[in-house]
Parts: sequence; C-alpha cells; structure tokens
Amino acid sequence: MIKIGLEDLDDIALGATFLGTGGGGDPYIASLMTRRAIAENGPVTMLSLDEIDDDVLVFACGNMGAPTVAIEKIMGADQPPAAVLALEAHLGHQADLLMAFEAGGSNSMMPIYNAAMLGKPMVDADGMGRAFPEMQMVTFSVYGASSSPFALASEHGDTTILDISDDKRAEYLGRGIVIRMGARSAKASFPMDGKTAKRVAIPGTTSLCQSIGANLRQSRAENRDPFAALIDMLSGTHYGHAKILFNGKVTDLIRETRDGWAIGKVVITDQQDASLEVEFQNEFLVARQDGKLRTIVPDLICILDSEMAQPITTERLRYGQRVTVMAVSAPSIMRTEAALAIFGPVGFGLTEPFVPVENLP
Amino acid sequence: MIKIGLEDLDDIALGATFLGTGGGGDPYIASLMTRRAIAENGPVTMLSLDEIDDDVLVFACGNMGAPTVAIEKIMGADQPPAAVLALEAHLGHQADLLMAFEAGGSNSMMPIYNAAMLGKPMVDADGMGRAFPEMQMVTFSVYGASSSPFALASEHGDTTILDISDDKRAEYLGRGIVIRMGARSAKASFPMDGKTAKRVAIPGTTSLCQSIGANLRQSRAENRDPFAALIDMLSGTHYGHAKILFNGKVTDLIRETRDGWAIGKVVITDQQDASLEVEFQNEFLVARQDGKLRTIVPDLICILDSEMAQPITTERLRYGQRVTVMAVSAPSIMRTEAALAIFGPVGFGLTEPFVPVENLP
Repeated sequence: MIKIGLEDLDDIALGATFLGTGGGGDPYIASLMTRRAIAENGPVTMLSLDEIDDDVLVFACGNMGAPTVAIEKIMGADQPPAAVLALEAHLGHQADLLMAFEAGGSNSMMPIYNAAMLGKPMVDADGMGRAFPEMQMVTFSVYGASSSPFALASEHGDTTILDISDDKRAEYLGRGIVIRMGARSAKASFPMDGKTAKRVAIPGTTSLCQSIGANLRQSRAENRDPFAALIDMLSGTHYGHAKILFNGKVTDLIRETRDGWAIGKVVITDQQDASLEVEFQNEFLVARQDGKLRTIVPDLICILDSEMAQPITTERLRYGQRVTVMAVSAPSIMRTEAALAIFGPVGFGLTEPFVPVENLP
Repeated sequence: MIKIGLEDLDDIALGATFLGTGGGGDPYIASLMTRRAIAENGPVTMLSLDEIDDDVLVFACGNMGAPTVAIEKIMGADQPPAAVLALEAHLGHQADLLMAFEAGGSNSMMPIYNAAMLGKPMVDADGMGRAFPEMQMVTFSVYGASSSPFALASEHGDTTILDISDDKRAEYLGRGIVIRMGARSAKASFPMDGKTAKRVAIPGTTSLCQSIGANLRQSRAENRDPFAALIDMLSGTHYGHAKILFNGKVTDLIRETRDGWAIGKVVITDQQDASLEVEFQNEFLVARQDGKLRTIVPDLICILDSEMAQPITTERLRYGQRVTVMAVSAPSIMRTEAALAIFGPVGFGLTEPFVPVENLP
C-alpha cells in the first residue's frame, strides 16, 4: 500500500505521457484537477493487485473522447465522479476500489481524481498498459471481463448506462454517445470483483508511470542522458526491452479528427535524409523506415523531444520539432494470441503480423 | 375500459397511418408483430386516462429511428419488451401501464405489442397526437414531464439507459445511440405517475386511430366518399376541423436519409397546373401553394391516395401517384404557446408563425 500525494502527481503525469505512446491525451489538465482534489481531500491510498480481497467491487474509470478536443474542452469537476455514481446507482452497489482502464495519457489521472473526490482507495493496475484508442482494447476484455454495464457522463450532468454484451459493439455504441457529448465523456466501466481484477488486469502500471516520470525528472536534474537512464530502468520491469528507434526532425504531419479520433501520420527525417514514418489513431501504432517494420502495436512507440526527453502527444506534434523515437516491449500479458487478436496489428486494420520489437532491427 | 383484440388491429393501423401525417413509419409490420402477440397472449386491456389511479407508474413506449430503415430492418420480437424491462430494472419498479408516446405511425402499435407481450394494460393516450420526428416533441415535455430515465434496446439485446435533464438534449444524445443501433431502437421513456399522465397526455388517441380506421374501412365497403365521411366523423372529436387541401399527382419528390431522419419535399400538381409543395422531416410539416401557406405544423397534413383514401407515408410516396391532401386541426393541448414553442413551426426551423388551419384558405 502506498499513498499518492501532491508531490507524486507530476511524476505520474510525466510517466503516463510516456506510456500514452502519443495518445490518451496530455495529462496536464487532468493532473491540475487531481492536484486540487488531493489538496482538498488528502492523499489517495493505492493498493497493489495482490493486496486486494477477492470479493471487492472494482470499477475501471477514465475518460472517453478525442484528445484533440480535450485540450480546449476541460472536464467538469463533477463529471468523472458522476460516471462512478451513476454506475453505483444502477448496480445498487458502491465500488470498493477504482482502477485505471488506461494507464497512459490523461486517463492515468482519472482513478486518482475519482478516488480523491469520492474517498475511495485505488488499485495499481490497468487494462491497457499504455494507451489505446478503443475501449475493448483492454486485457479486461481479452481475458473475459465485460465492460458492461458502464456509465458515461457529460459536462451537463447527463449520464447514460450501457449494457452491451460485446465490448467491440460497446465501443461503437458508446462512441455514438461520446461524439454527441462533445467528444469528451467521463466513464466508469468494467465492474468486476477483486478475483477477476487479479486475473485480467496489468499489474503495477500506475506506479510504473511514477517510476518513469521520476527517472526522467532525475536525469534532467542530474544532467544525465535521460534516454539511457530510462532504458536501463525499464530493463528491470515487465516492459524490459527498450531502445532508441530514430533521431530526427518532424518533416511532415497529417492529422484529422474523424469519428471522434485523432487519426494521421508523422514523418521524421534525420540528417542522412533517412525517414521514419509513424501512423497513429490517437496513439502511435506502427513505425516503418524505408517501408521496413521497426515497431508495431501493442509494443510501444514513444516520441520525445530530443533535448528534455519530454514525451510528445500526437496533438502536440509540430513541424520542425527535433525528436527521439523510442520503442518499448509490451508486457507478456499483452502479447498473447488472444491479446494480439484484440489490440495487435489486426485490431487496427494493419496487415503486418506482430513481431516483438526485440526481434526487429 | 375496452379490449383490443385481433379484429381491431387493422383499423388502428390504418387510423395511425392517417395520424402519422406521412411519418412514424408504416404500421404494417408492427401490426403483424402485434397480431401474433395478441394471438398468443390474448386481447389487451386499454383504460382511458380518467380510469387510471393517480399513483400508478406509466411508461411511454415506442420505437426511435428512421422510417425508411424500418421497411427493411424489422424489429426483433424481444426488442420492444427489452426496453421496458431495462427501464424497470433500472428504476427498481415495474410499470403498471404502458402508453404510446406517438399515436401516429408504427409507434401506435408498440404499447399494444408490449402490453400483450408483458401482460400489462395500456392507457388510451399519447404525447404527440400524431407523429413527430423528435422525442422532445411531446406534450409530456411541454407540460413538465421528463423523458428520463429512458431505455433504448437494439436487436442484439443491447440496452442503454439515458438520464438527461433536458429533453431536447435527450433527443440529441439518444439519436447518437439510435443511429449506431442501425437507426432502429425500441424505447421505453417518460416514466410518470397516473396523476401526471392525466395532466400531460393527449387523451383518447389510440381509440381515435381505431375510429379513423373503422370510418375509412366502412366508407370503402359501402362505396361512400371516404373523405367526406372522415371529415364528418372528425368534426365530433377534438380534431374538429378537417378539410381537403388539394387533389393532384405527385410530380416531384426529393428525399434523403440524413442524421437518422427521412428529410425532403413532395410536389403535387393538379390538372390546372397548380402545385402544392409539402416539406417533410419524417412527417409532413408545411404545405404551401404558390408560396402561400395552406397548413403548418402542429396541424396535420395527410396525403392519401385519391381512390381508396389510403394514407401514404413519406417513404411510400412515388412519382405519378394520384393523391388527395387533407388538413386536420390539432387538439387545443397541442396549440398552446408552450406547445408551439416545442413542436410548432419554430421547432422545425420554419419562419412562418403558426396559423390554425381553420383560419387559412
């Protein structure tokens, strides 16, 4: 059991931006909300998966929408708790613990925020181990937990409960509401017991965000090479294989907000005129150099500014930025055949088969 | 109290098509479903508003979607009851009575169908007194009842509960789901007590459908002028002013399915080359002749084939049809200032003010 206090939020936000692999939204605004919630209500208790009882009720919470919208349309203070409360009211049971469904990006903050606002503890785990664009792309779904019933809340206090037997259809139907909620909804989902959470969730991902953020912060403070230090730190975790893919300058950027997603690609060119092309759908999905595969989802592609090693989200990419592209291996729970069927290349319409990043050039 | 049996369904369906004013969907398929439900479960008990107790729980039920889609995508047998059951489960209370929210079109059948399937009685009343394209366009909303919480169900058994404080926003958010449910959802909405129903509902509209249908059927059987007989019959109801607007041939038809609605206009030309132009959004909204207003919403515009006086829905309009256009005054509960603000001309973006059809040429 650890406590998450004000002093931890910047590190978690920084690490979550890294794990966000370009997506999940910049956690900055959500971290400001969470700062205020903790300042008013005190630190949040976080338990590891093996510290929770089998019969507790856990909700996975976060937001659902387009990161490009989130920059301008700020979540209402009551909006995330409204989703939790709506799901509790519908079930007739209070949640004992909150959990992230997405440790990457701004959704990293939502269980902390909700836990502070509602006076509940949280679990150090999530369902994505990074960020993904669609709600069925979680280990929860892969290993048999259902997203339903789940609640969505708008900034107007409007709430909806969806009860949908298939999580891909849940994503499709939920997105229909989310788009009309202005591409920004708070969500409480995947109500499950502790026993299920231990089986289907990726352990330790919120504290991993904190470790990544702390590592980057210390490297900067001590003027060490932040990339080398981070690769070294990750080698001791279940995200063991990390490497630098490419160094260069953003020379092309195509981006549109479509169907509630930020979709596009970025081209990075180095001084030898070699180019790395990275496609994204909210998150970076695939990196190719001269048509050859370098990294592919669910392995992580992270683009950081070359000087400060600040991870850059897709909506903050700009022509001319000097960037370093890192690749990180996803944990084994995310690389099983069942997992790859949901959020491997095929889940995004990519034709390449998955190849672990440690086996690629 | 009356019983609705198999022998009543054709008359109700025919009258509902007339009250549908071109919209609400052709009740034919829904009447076949209802026929089977009554054949299996027996006649449905229908009470008038003044026969129900103040403290009963009433749901308004029907479908939500695009009539053009309904021709090809048939509702699942369990789909309408699934919406009622989902709302009951969410509220933790069973509905005592079902009611139409829209007496016109295929929605006329849904409370009868659900009542037969679920073994409940129904109330002889509705919220539209005709058909309208949007769910907030009901006297329920006008006089202060809330649509929420309401349930939508898909043919997959998926259900959603929406809890939205504003009924126009409920329409907008609900439509987002409905579109993704394939423009065809079953709905249970406006949970209200009997006392509220007596205040906000339009009385007698299901039995009015039956009277209209029976009147048309008898005229045909007896070879009388069906239009004169119908105008005479309506003069004794709260839809007192009915008249023939125009006789002619369909000479132009523009139609598209957009945002889940059937939108367009039809032009009818007579032998003197005069033309009546009728705009529709699911239902006929406004009729103009040489740019002059002849009838405007919420008064009813009904297009019938000239020979059999069969009402024609917008999706069944065809070039070359010989038609008779009738206008009918809406009941006074639908013509108050509050009602006109919701489903008068302004509710459809029309710039003309409402003028009662009895005061127009």
